Parts: sequence; C-alpha cells; structure tokens
Amino acid sequence: MRLVTVRIDGATRAGRVSGDEIVLLDAPDVRAVLEAGPATSGTVPVAEASGTLALDGADFAPVVPAPDKIVCVGLNYRDHAEETNSALPAAPTYFAKYRRALTGPCDPIRLPPPEVSTSADWEVELAVVIGREVRNASADEALAAIAGFTVLNDVSIRDWQMRTTQFLAGKTFEGSTPVGPALVTTDEIGDGRGLSVSCTVDGVVKQSSNTDQLVFGPAELVADLSTIVTLDPGDIIATGTPAGVGMARNPQEWLAPGMVVRTAIEGIGELVNTCAGD
Amino acid sequence: MRLVTVRIDGATRAGRVSGDEIVLLDAPDVRAVLEAGPATSGTVPVAEASGTLALDGADFAPVVPAPDKIVCVGLNYRDHAEETNSALPAAPTYFAKYRRALTGPCDPIRLPPPEVSTSADWEVELAVVIGREVRNASADEALAAIAGFTVLNDVSIRDWQMRTTQFLAGKTFEGSTPVGPALVTTDEIGDGRGLSVSCTVDGVVKQSSNTDQLVFGPAELVADLSTIVTLDPGDIIATGTPAGVGMARNPQEWLAPGMVVRTAIEGIGELVNTCAGD
Repeated sequence: MRLVTVRIDGATRAGRVSGDEIVLLDAPDVRAVLEAGPATSGTVPVAEASGTLALDGADFAPVVPAPDKIVCVGLNYRDHAEETNSALPAAPTYFAKYRRALTGPCDPIRLPPPEVSTSADWEVELAVVIGREVRNASADEALAAIAGFTVLNDVSIRDWQMRTTQFLAGKTFEGSTPVGPALVTTDEIGDGRGLSVSCTVDGVVKQSSNTDQLVFGPAELVADLSTIVTLDPGDIIATGTPAGVGMARNPQEWLAPGMVVRTAIEGIGELVNTCAGD
Repeated sequence: MRLVTVRIDGATRAGRVSGDEIVLLDAPDVRAVLEAGPATSGTVPVAEASGTLALDGADFAPVVPAPDKIVCVGLNYRDHAEETNSALPAAPTYFAKYRRALTGPCDPIRLPPPEVSTSADWEVELAVVIGREVRNASADEALAAIAGFTVLNDVSIRDWQMRTTQFLAGKTFEGSTPVGPALVTTDEIGDGRGLSVSCTVDGVVKQSSNTDQLVFGPAELVADLSTIVTLDPGDIIATGTPAGVGMARNPQEWLAPGMVVRTAIEGIGELVNTCAGD
C-alpha cells in the first residue's frame, strides 16, 4: 500500500493511492493512520472518507508532516565513507532534525539567504517510517515495527553543519528537507535492502547507489535506537546518504535558487523540488 | 508568574502557582497556555478551571511535557570550557533531545541497565522556554520571545554520547532528563543572567556556578537559533552546564540507582530526583 498526506482546503488529509487516484481517509495525516493500527496492503486501520483526488496534480504535504522524532544517520554508506576518507563506523552516528525542516515532495527547497549561507548540499536518503511503538527491540521486532519506507533529501547547510562539532544547526533549516511522496508499506517493498537510490541536480546525476551499500540496515538502526528511546508511529529515520555530495566534489558544488533537485528511490518514487531563497 | 503542569486523573493540566496552592487552568499543559497568548504575572491567556491543588504533594509533570523542539547547548559556560580544556567557542554548539527523554521534577531519573551503560552523568542547566513564534529575531525580539525560565538536568549517558562524533544518542535516553518544577516568567525573573545554579548528588555539591558564566546568553541563543528555524511556544532551550560534571572528575564519577540528585536555580526552584534502573 502507498499512503500519502495531501493538502486540501488549508488542512491536511491522509490518503491511500489506488491506481491514478487518491482515496481520502478519515485521518489528518499518515502519522494518524499509523497510530490507529497496522497498515498493510490488506489493512487500512482507518475508515475511508468520502471522496477521491486525482494523483496527478495533488498537493502533497510531507508524508508525515509532524513526526514525534526525526532521526538522521551519518556516514552509513560504504561508498560515502570512502568518499570522505572515513573508516567504516563501529556504531551508527545519530543526529536530529526538527519537523519545521520538512517540506513537501514537490515544494520548493528553501535555501538560506546568501548572507546566511551559500553552501547548501544534497543528500538522497532512504527513510524508515515507524509503524508501532517499540523499545528494546530484537532484530525481528525491529523489522516488524517498520511501517514502510519513503524518500528524503537531507539537504545540508554545510557551513552551519561544520560550525561546531555537532551537525544539528546545518541540518534543520526551515523548509529545507523534502520528504515523500508516499509511504510504501513493507509488505510491498520488503526490508529496504537492494533499492537503487539517486539524486539529480538540473538533470545531472550527482548520486547513484543502492541501499545494499548501507553499513547499518533499517532493522539494525531501529533495534539500536530502541535501546535508547521508545520509537513511535510516524517517526522518521533517515538512513544516511551515499557518495556524490557537493561538499566532497572538486571543486565543491552547492545548490542555488532555481536549481531543480530530483531525489529518487526504486519502488517508492521521486521528490522533485526547485530551490528557492528563504 | 509561575506556571506548572500537574498530573491529575491520568491526564495533565496546567496550573498557576498562587501562594501555597495551584490554581488549575483550562489548558492541558504549559505549552497550551503559551500557545494561547502572552503569559506574565498580570496576564494568564487561558481561563481558570474550577479547582485548586495544594502545591505541596502535587504530582508534577515535565513543565512542558511535549515541546515541539528541545535544543541543548554544549560548552556554554566559561568554567566548564576550562574544565574540559576547551577554547571558548565562537558559535553555540547545538544538539537535540526528544520529548520522551523528559521526566518530571520529582520523578525518578531512569538510568539504562548496567549492560547498556554505567556512565550516567549530571548537568544542571538553565532552560529557556519560548513564549511566541519567532524567526530571524533581533536581540530585542529574541528576549521578547522568551516566556521565562525553568530548571533542566541534561543527564548524559557518556559512553553513548561519545560513541560517535554526535552527542544525540547519549542525550536522549528515555525518562533521563528532569525538567521543571515551574516556568517562571521573565517579568519576575528577568533575562536569565546572574542566577546561581547548582547540582548536588547525595548531599554533596558537584556543580555550583552562576549564569553570568554563560558564553552565549539566552537572548543570543534565541536570536541565533531563529536564523535556522522558527521557534515555537513551549520550545525548550537548555543553555549548557557549568564545571563539575562527573566525567571531568578524577577519578570519574557516575550516577547509580538510589542516588538522589538535586538540581537548583536561584529564583526558579529545585528538581529532586532519585536515580532508578530502567
């Protein structure tokens, strides 16, 4: 099943994709759907509302507009570790993002004004969406707690990211992080392994890899995080980015207003975002 | 004015402290009060509900149980920078905590089981509570956006904090971070400068300093953060900790089940928490 959150009449509404239509659901967003119960192709845990929308031209919100947690993982691709001359990590590197960083799958990517920063960079990432509360999970419990996967571009303002030892400042600029377009449930897409991922800027492929390159896979991340804190339905875990970011290029490359970023993952879909000044 | 969040009948309720009583308010928690409008000694933006509680023996929840954001600041005391042999920072170091890390001002501090970690440490911190939405604030606007201050102990699981370059993992263990007991509004307590802060473990003073030692003061932090992202009513900014943490002692000292931690700030009050296994 593919679940989406769309904007209608100044509010948001969850929907289920059915062919070229969105069947509206009796829930304000995908987090509320997941909080109501397990979601698979055979089971939608909330009632259908009256009405459908054409998939084409729908106004998509971030697939989970306000997660309780957004956890990002650093240095989690073998090829990205090589690119940055880093050793493969012994443990996952976690940092956070706040929900105001999120933007919709077709919305502008908001870049800081030039006097604040000119070093915005792209990072295609497979994002886990949690389906049920989970703490101290075994590997099997962790996999069962994953509702499915979506696409996220962890757009990073590199000078703010590197201003101190802690990445948060550069990772949570308002409206910088597109996420969506749909949550694809695990019964359709599996455990998130073996999916090709890519990021294209103005038609030029910048990142192209496969989630087989992940050092810590989705279930491992969920199990490890659940040692620290309870994960909740709708929580997003951005699993890290492969090689090809602008910061690691020679010369370095940055996003600028007007550029079009396409962020795609096999079996899920594509974010298409134009960069805009904030 | 002093605002609190108390637990009654399995839910939470905001209250205003009046002498030795709590006047219950028509809002589920302090965040909801702040979202309703400015709160000062002369103005409570929500109606009073029927009923009062005795202050003594009330069951206090975290003063804001579910902030949109919890931002923590590292290395922000002159004396703590000296203790850790760090240069004074040129910019504030930010990292995050999730709301499930919070616990009430008289609740147990939940420590990980010994097989997960035995290196829990204390960190008394003055915490800013945001009163109104603010973005790209000047220094004056930043100060005006602060509703007031509360006390937070940024209990840190040091081995998890230092497991990678990013602190998040060790800073967001479930139920590890007491916060409260009250939000004291700026019209009573001022701008947060010049307040003595202390942390005592089993009656022994471990940290004793003054917010005059802050490198970046509350308004500076709010202004800088608002360059990155909009701050919202109820957001908490933990401003950093002074010298005296267990990690920097010789030999190092850690919290263990049964220990009693008292975390106090002049003019606000005290957290009294017993450490407990999780």
